[in-house]
Amino acid sequence: MANPSLLILPGDGIGPEVMAEVRRAIDWFGAKRGLVFDVSEDLVGGCAYDAHGTPLTDETMAKAQEVDAVLLGAVGGPKYDKLDFSVKPERGLLRLRKEMDLFSNLRPAQCFDALADFSSLKREVVAGLDIMIIRELTSGVYFGEPRGIHKEGNERVGINTQRYTESEIARVARSAFELARKRSNKVCSMEKANVMESGILWRDVVQEVHDAEYPDVELSHMYADAGAMQLTRWPKQFDVIVTDNLFGDLLSDLAAMLTGSLGMLPSASLGLPMANGRPKALYEPVHGSAPDIAGQGKANPIACILSFAMALRYSFDEGANADLLEGAVQTVLADGVRTADLMGPDGGTPVSTTEMGDAILAAL
Amino acid sequence: MANPSLLILPGDGIGPEVMAEVRRAIDWFGAKRGLVFDVSEDLVGGCAYDAHGTPLTDETMAKAQEVDAVLLGAVGGPKYDKLDFSVKPERGLLRLRKEMDLFSNLRPAQCFDALADFSSLKREVVAGLDIMIIRELTSGVYFGEPRGIHKEGNERVGINTQRYTESEIARVARSAFELARKRSNKVCSMEKANVMESGILWRDVVQEVHDAEYPDVELSHMYADAGAMQLTRWPKQFDVIVTDNLFGDLLSDLAAMLTGSLGMLPSASLGLPMANGRPKALYEPVHGSAPDIAGQGKANPIACILSFAMALRYSFDEGANADLLEGAVQTVLADGVRTADLMGPDGGTPVSTTEMGDAILAAL
Ligand SMILES: CC(C)[C@H](C(=O)O)[C@@H](O)C(=O)O
Ligand SMILES: CC(C)[C@H](C(=O)O)[C@@H](O)C(=O)O
Repeated sequence: MANPSLLILPGDGIGPEVMAEVRRAIDWFGAKRGLVFDVSEDLVGGCAYDAHGTPLTDETMAKAQEVDAVLLGAVGGPKYDKLDFSVKPERGLLRLRKEMDLFSNLRPAQCFDALADFSSLKREVVAGLDIMIIRELTSGVYFGEPRGIHKEGNERVGINTQRYTESEIARVARSAFELARKRSNKVCSMEKANVMESGILWRDVVQEVHDAEYPDVELSHMYADAGAMQLTRWPKQFDVIVTDNLFGDLLSDLAAMLTGSLGMLPSASLGLPMANGRPKALYEPVHGSAPDIAGQGKANPIACILSFAMALRYSFDEGANADLLEGAVQTVLADGVRTADLMGPDGGTPVSTTEMGDAILAAL
Repeated sequence: MANPSLLILPGDGIGPEVMAEVRRAIDWFGAKRGLVFDVSEDLVGGCAYDAHGTPLTDETMAKAQEVDAVLLGAVGGPKYDKLDFSVKPERGLLRLRKEMDLFSNLRPAQCFDALADFSSLKREVVAGLDIMIIRELTSGVYFGEPRGIHKEGNERVGINTQRYTESEIARVARSAFELARKRSNKVCSMEKANVMESGILWRDVVQEVHDAEYPDVELSHMYADAGAMQLTRWPKQFDVIVTDNLFGDLLSDLAAMLTGSLGMLPSASLGLPMANGRPKALYEPVHGSAPDIAGQGKANPIACILSFAMALRYSFDEGANADLLEGAVQTVLADGVRTADLMGPDGGTPVSTTEMGDAILAAL
């Protein structure tokens, strides 16, 4: 059987630096655990625009469709702020999500014990926090038509469309219920059904899927504004949260920030099963391209390394190897090894991006 | 000259209880400070639906248009959850906002010193916090057309439209810049210009209004997801935040929760000047109708009383009297007088809704 294939898209800013450490981890698993991947690398985002005038070429898109999993670093930077909307770095990422049909975005918000004091929240509120936000990723206001800016009389008008079909809601709801069964069997769905009809449909369909297929899972509904409040007040009341693309964007970033472990958080974006049974999949850190520290060896590679761990788990059914990698990260943190973003109340040994990679390999 | 007029709409849940304390404060200002209001009272929300089959009658709407200011308690409750969208309690509130054209919603997120320990955030992150979120309140996805749920083939599709015109953005931007000039001269505007064209227009128009009319004010832009993060990480970096209706809904609730003083926070919704020069205005607490504790004398009337203080300030130019009322609230808090929601780490004297009203009147 052929080796499983990975497409690596380091992207912009700190993307290439953190991805370099992931490649070392990939190599380690090949050499030491017989887990050999066919790895190819390509451009996405601003760097793709610089090279080809588009944030994602058709060739790269086609490659992404063929591989078993895509690992992405980060896209964007101030250099590209003035670009036309249609060629902004973000469009490359959005095209990947849309054309690979990655409708289920798993964003764990997990507080690493060694880092609980980094949170702006009180230790007791966040210590041990481990929730999972499932964000719908291929529809909603991100992709709805009509959209754009046009003139009416003398003035410009900006339009976007929030649009959800029943089946789009049902499939992401299913992925939330499935995941809940492997965790605490509890899902909270968030929308604004009190002001948006698309929110009413969201609530109804989630409830219907629940009643018909997952009656054993505990389901609750919450308005998204109340959700933002409750996440801030007492996040441990939640386990799995399922919500739409735009609310998911805000709420998952909020949840990530609660943990104080932002540079640590991975994500998985999953689609339908391919012919080989594996889901279409893209893995990326939650953090952005951090252009302010790019190229200085300051970036924390852990979120990107943990994204590879998620790939091991969700694409390759390599739970034990994922545990191994996650365990190595925990060890290194417990040992006080700290990139700049992790230097805080508890002191620790300051290290560069590469040294953090070294430490994790050593712990493996 | 006729007395200034107030329309009181207590609404549902704890609305009537907290509003009863506001009425006592209003009476106090009449008796002791010669500030006499013509006060009328009417129904909004679920109670209006119970009485008239609609959450806001045309008569009440007409009255709201005529008075100098509206004070609202809260709307909604589980009893009304199954009602049709068009007659839900919330529609009464949304109709008031829309028909009075209350485009500028001022939501202070202020941390009361005596309550800083109530926050789930660390004391140093929130103590002394005092920011103002200006939320656009009459447009965006709350009101955009087309909207609704329809069938396409076998499946339901839910649609809402985010729509902003240049002038809608410009006028709320102006109100943010005006307010910033009276505060720290600093505005941060939030949208998702990286994924939504309506966000691009928002960013451009805010910048244009700034450059043409308010070049002295410091203006920055932030994506709303990053805004949610930064509010959580270090809210004191902000002073005035301006954002659209939906982002404003989430971000202002988030900001309110940060302070730990949710039961304390008022809001003002302002429109265009009327013939007498006063803006169309509605004042309401940020908290909801809290049906779980309604009718038990447990509710905290302070947010509603401080909403009346905002009315004194923004509708009636009675800054000194507003200061007086706000000062009385501070005194009472410093004295340890506490409704149930305020009973926490620091002990204090537990009081009922009415006793809190008594204490504030005594402090006046
Ligand atoms: C970069 C941007 C387009 C993206 C989004 O808005 O989805 C990001 O914020 C994210 O959450 O992955
Ligand atoms: C009650 C509801 C319609 C309302 C809103 O969504 O605007 C509320 O959440 C608010 O923020 O005032």
